[in-house]
Amino acid sequence: MSGAPLRVALLGCGTVGSAVLRLLAEQAGDITARVGRPVEVAGVAVRRPDRHPGVPAELLTTDAHALVTRDDVDLVVEVIGGIDPARELMLAAFSAGKSVVSANKALLADDGVALHAAAAEAGVDLYYEAAVAGAIPLLRPLRESLAGDQLTRVVGIVNGTTNYILSRMAETGAGFAEALAEATELGYAEADPTADVDGFDAAAKAAILASLAFHTPVTAADVHREGIAAVSATDVARAAEIGCTVKLLAICEKVEGERGASVAVRVHPAMIPTSHPLASVGGAFNAVFVEAEAAGQLMFYGQGAGGEPTASAVLGDLVAVARNRVAGVAGPGTTAYAGLPVAPMADTPTRYHVSLDVADVPGVLAQVAQEFAAHDVSISTVRQDGAGEAATLVIVTHRAPDSALSATISRLREMPAVRAVTSVLRVEGLA
Amino acid sequence: MSGAPLRVALLGCGTVGSAVLRLLAEQAGDITARVGRPVEVAGVAVRRPDRHPGVPAELLTTDAHALVTRDDVDLVVEVIGGIDPARELMLAAFSAGKSVVSANKALLADDGVALHAAAAEAGVDLYYEAAVAGAIPLLRPLRESLAGDQLTRVVGIVNGTTNYILSRMAETGAGFAEALAEATELGYAEADPTADVDGFDAAAKAAILASLAFHTPVTAADVHREGIAAVSATDVARAAEIGCTVKLLAICEKVEGERGASVAVRVHPAMIPTSHPLASVGGAFNAVFVEAEAAGQLMFYGQGAGGEPTASAVLGDLVAVARNRVAGVAGPGTTAYAGLPVAPMADTPTRYHVSLDVADVPGVLAQVAQEFAAHDVSISTVRQDGAGEAATLVIVTHRAPDSALSATISRLREMPAVRAVTSVLRVEGLA
Repeated sequence: MSGAPLRVALLGCGTVGSAVLRLLAEQAGDITARVGRPVEVAGVAVRRPDRHPGVPAELLTTDAHALVTRDDVDLVVEVIGGIDPARELMLAAFSAGKSVVSANKALLADDGVALHAAAAEAGVDLYYEAAVAGAIPLLRPLRESLAGDQLTRVVGIVNGTTNYILSRMAETGAGFAEALAEATELGYAEADPTADVDGFDAAAKAAILASLAFHTPVTAADVHREGIAAVSATDVARAAEIGCTVKLLAICEKVEGERGASVAVRVHPAMIPTSHPLASVGGAFNAVFVEAEAAGQLMFYGQGAGGEPTASAVLGDLVAVARNRVAGVAGPGTTAYAGLPVAPMADTPTRYHVSLDVADVPGVLAQVAQEFAAHDVSISTVRQDGAGEAATLVIVTHRAPDSALSATISRLREMPAVRAVTSVLRVEGLA
Repeated sequence: MSGAPLRVALLGCGTVGSAVLRLLAEQAGDITARVGRPVEVAGVAVRRPDRHPGVPAELLTTDAHALVTRDDVDLVVEVIGGIDPARELMLAAFSAGKSVVSANKALLADDGVALHAAAAEAGVDLYYEAAVAGAIPLLRPLRESLAGDQLTRVVGIVNGTTNYILSRMAETGAGFAEALAEATELGYAEADPTADVDGFDAAAKAAILASLAFHTPVTAADVHREGIAAVSATDVARAAEIGCTVKLLAICEKVEGERGASVAVRVHPAMIPTSHPLASVGGAFNAVFVEAEAAGQLMFYGQGAGGEPTASAVLGDLVAVARNRVAGVAGPGTTAYAGLPVAPMADTPTRYHVSLDVADVPGVLAQVAQEFAAHDVSISTVRQDGAGEAATLVIVTHRAPDSALSATISRLREMPAVRAVTSVLRVEGLA
């Protein structure tokens, strides 16, 4: 329990960074006991030192590069976010023999392979539990607890902003724009909500999850991405009618095809049955559902964002890399030995829910069914509700290549008997 | 990816052991890639070699002690269960410098401190993720992911048999005996269900969870334990009336009292609100709800038993200890530095639900309320339903020391105006 303190360079001191500082101070005794040596802050790199009155002035610096390479720094915590300068600072830290704890999903999703290689070459650690699903222990379980199993599927609600918006749409019947405005007012959505609403944030997390789950390099650019801006009140109402709820899902699957296994990674809104464990994950919470061959179904649930929850994950990693430093080792790195190809969305098997307003004349259902059959799409259920001279058809398909389903929808839109395609959403988690 | 194979001694070859053997064989390539060296089976210790026709004869032995100390064995997997001879074999393995992976909740709950000390002295690992909640990654997240946080509460459904029985009672209105008989017939309960039904299994798991969560030695004998045999159909019906469901909970809490912090660990049936994340954990599933100061609320969910799920957890640990062996290190041990006292159940704050049949005469409620007040127990809600000359009182209290609540109940049973105390259960998770 003694020995020289391990010294940490903190890069960035926003919501997460200041929570890290506070928790490090509050828990100094416990962290010393858990690591075997004290852990103290060597310096804090920020852009505007005058904006951090709570941080001792002698710790503040604007020269992050000098800080990470200082001889009296053992470990680096990077909570700046974004690609640059975080990438250069991380690489400089590795070159100087320092392990890094990061919460940077964008950077890890963009360039994880090169960063892992640099850390491995330097014999140091790169841990980033906080980058996906905030406080929820997820990456370590995937990387270590399930290391003796074969993962087949990871499905997550990994963006709290969109989950809040979709939860409110379901509760109030509001449309997307109205629910977004409420989320912005309450601080659940940022002034520019693009990264959340258009699925960029979830796609970065999906890339990280897929890489770990399938030991395969996957970048954010490999992820098929659709946001929630096109989800309508009608979609949400139609979902409820078939016992489902609409969620923005990050889905990572191993797909066995004729040419061997591949990895499909996608982010899009989908209907899931209300009985599914993910369906009741409301508000700003995150949850990730994992399927493995031996373990079966697992779920991890908790707060996906916020200063304190994210700092909890950062500090868990910091204790781990500090222990490794004390032991003189690096922890298990991330392996990409499987090197599976990423399947294009067109080939990925999905299921669709489609609602149509049709003319209520004999033969319409047969015409519609024929269009699905022509694309080799098998129908699971059809419900037809007549109303005067119009009728509504609600169709849920079996699994088929996504391209066959989207092609079918395009053709339906052109059919004279189809007055309107009122709702199209993929369906996940149905038996 | 090369080097001499790491060789494993498998102790026990029942449901879990045979699943471990099968998965090790099926995933040999992946495990080699993840560990950096092949992992192969050196021998399998069983009592009756003739009962294991699927295991190559040259691997089978009845001399477990000789197997664990053999020079060509690097790692030991113990899935015999029970205290003896598992304890001696584990200590022999440590003395011989071999890390151990175990699924043995009874032994770890009984003697964890001494076993951890022996492993630490030998500089080897003792991992036992499979001992609690089967396939659910739980101990590693508690020990590592949350190492930078302060846990305040761990509440789990950690016994699938009792959860199945209580789920069926809620679904069908059956009494305990009937639901147990069904569980036995379907193979969810053992011929002698004592360990499950009376809470011994859950208490062992609670002791392990409390030890890890609070860095404090807790044994099964420290755990206040009540089983589900006394849970009646009336209890289940009363729970539903107040928007709750009955679960057997393992509860580990840090309690701040006048004489400082202590740890309260208990297993008993309780009513929880149907909106609580644990309430929807049905059938044979397990789930553990964790509260930490910075992380907030987390939940882990999955299969708590069965050969394959348990083997998944064993293999995850096996990959970890194998990696450590390749790196020439031991992983982070379990610390008990906090050494908090264990609070007696009498002092532990709980809440009660009480249903009473009372004479419908003026002043009964006042008399009953006076009895709670006399014990310094504050009432949260009362509902009174009249029916002819009798009435029913349903009371939910605020938190009070458990002894004050149980003393109040004893006094109520003696009151002339109280015809019967029809249901008493603790309530957890209410706001």
